[in-house]
Amino acid sequence: MNFKDYIREVPDFPTPGISFKDITPLLEDAEAFRKAGEALMDFVKDLRVDKVVGIESRGFFYAPILAEKLGVGFVPARKPGKLPRKTQRQTYDLEYGSDALEIHAESITPGDRVLIHDDVLATGGTARAICDLVTSLGGEVVQCNFLIELEFLGGRQKLGDVPLRALVSY
Amino acid sequence: MNFKDYIREVPDFPTPGISFKDITPLLEDAEAFRKAGEALMDFVKDLRVDKVVGIESRGFFYAPILAEKLGVGFVPARKPGKLPRKTQRQTYDLEYGSDALEIHAESITPGDRVLIHDDVLATGGTARAICDLVTSLGGEVVQCNFLIELEFLGGRQKLGDVPLRALVSY
Repeated sequence: MNFKDYIREVPDFPTPGISFKDITPLLEDAEAFRKAGEALMDFVKDLRVDKVVGIESRGFFYAPILAEKLGVGFVPARKPGKLPRKTQRQTYDLEYGSDALEIHAESITPGDRVLIHDDVLATGGTARAICDLVTSLGGEVVQCNFLIELEFLGGRQKLGDVPLRALVSY
Repeated sequence: MNFKDYIREVPDFPTPGISFKDITPLLEDAEAFRKAGEALMDFVKDLRVDKVVGIESRGFFYAPILAEKLGVGFVPARKPGKLPRKTQRQTYDLEYGSDALEIHAESITPGDRVLIHDDVLATGGTARAICDLVTSLGGEVVQCNFLIELEFLGGRQKLGDVPLRALVSY
């Protein structure tokens, strides 16, 4: 299956000059939705994983499915102020300004082998921040796993030697 | 399994006087996470379902799992401005002010039998809005399905005769 057939490019969204990769046609098609999940699972089938971390919001589409299929727990990484207990926060730079993500501090146990999933690897700022967050709590990132890699933005370089897999590349 | 053992009540979050039901311990525990998904599936096993709609953000934890297990597509209902193509929007009242949710207009085909999932049924405003949104696009809501029902808030009354199931009640 060519997953790109189910990803729609929307010009000038959310801002002029950006070609947004809309994955909702893939999610809405029963067969493409299931097969993309299976293909993401193929990336991790030889790994030992203790937790799956998904990044708010679009990382939540597949991260829980991966956790369920792997038989491990799911940890949401959320925007600041959404998680009610003691959190660990990581700030990261955007093109203009900065943003941050949090996970509950006790969600990662030292030694946990962690799979990180998000929908898109763009500049790598978000993925780098989550890797740092997991590492700062004593976890080990065994793979960063994406539906889409925007290769021309060079995010892969920001992740250093963290293993990285993506279903489709642009 | 008593799922309430995995739901932590956090007093005065997000605002004083609110006892927040934190489901992250349930998500993070491999067995509880899996069994809650199976229990949610039990609610729908005798239904014919064409699409699953999940409500941003916490509805995204289980709605994709339900869609995957049912072998149907997943439709995200998102905050305004997040979906890039033509959307249908529904506004709903909050205690102070209002909020809105959108789905892509072409995500629901007239006649679609739709399962709606969210984490918590509180006052019912959000769930009512999504039911109206699905109906306005020609879909039929076959069940609203929640992890938690806060019975004392009376949300069930707002849903009229839409079938409603929840895993735990307070």
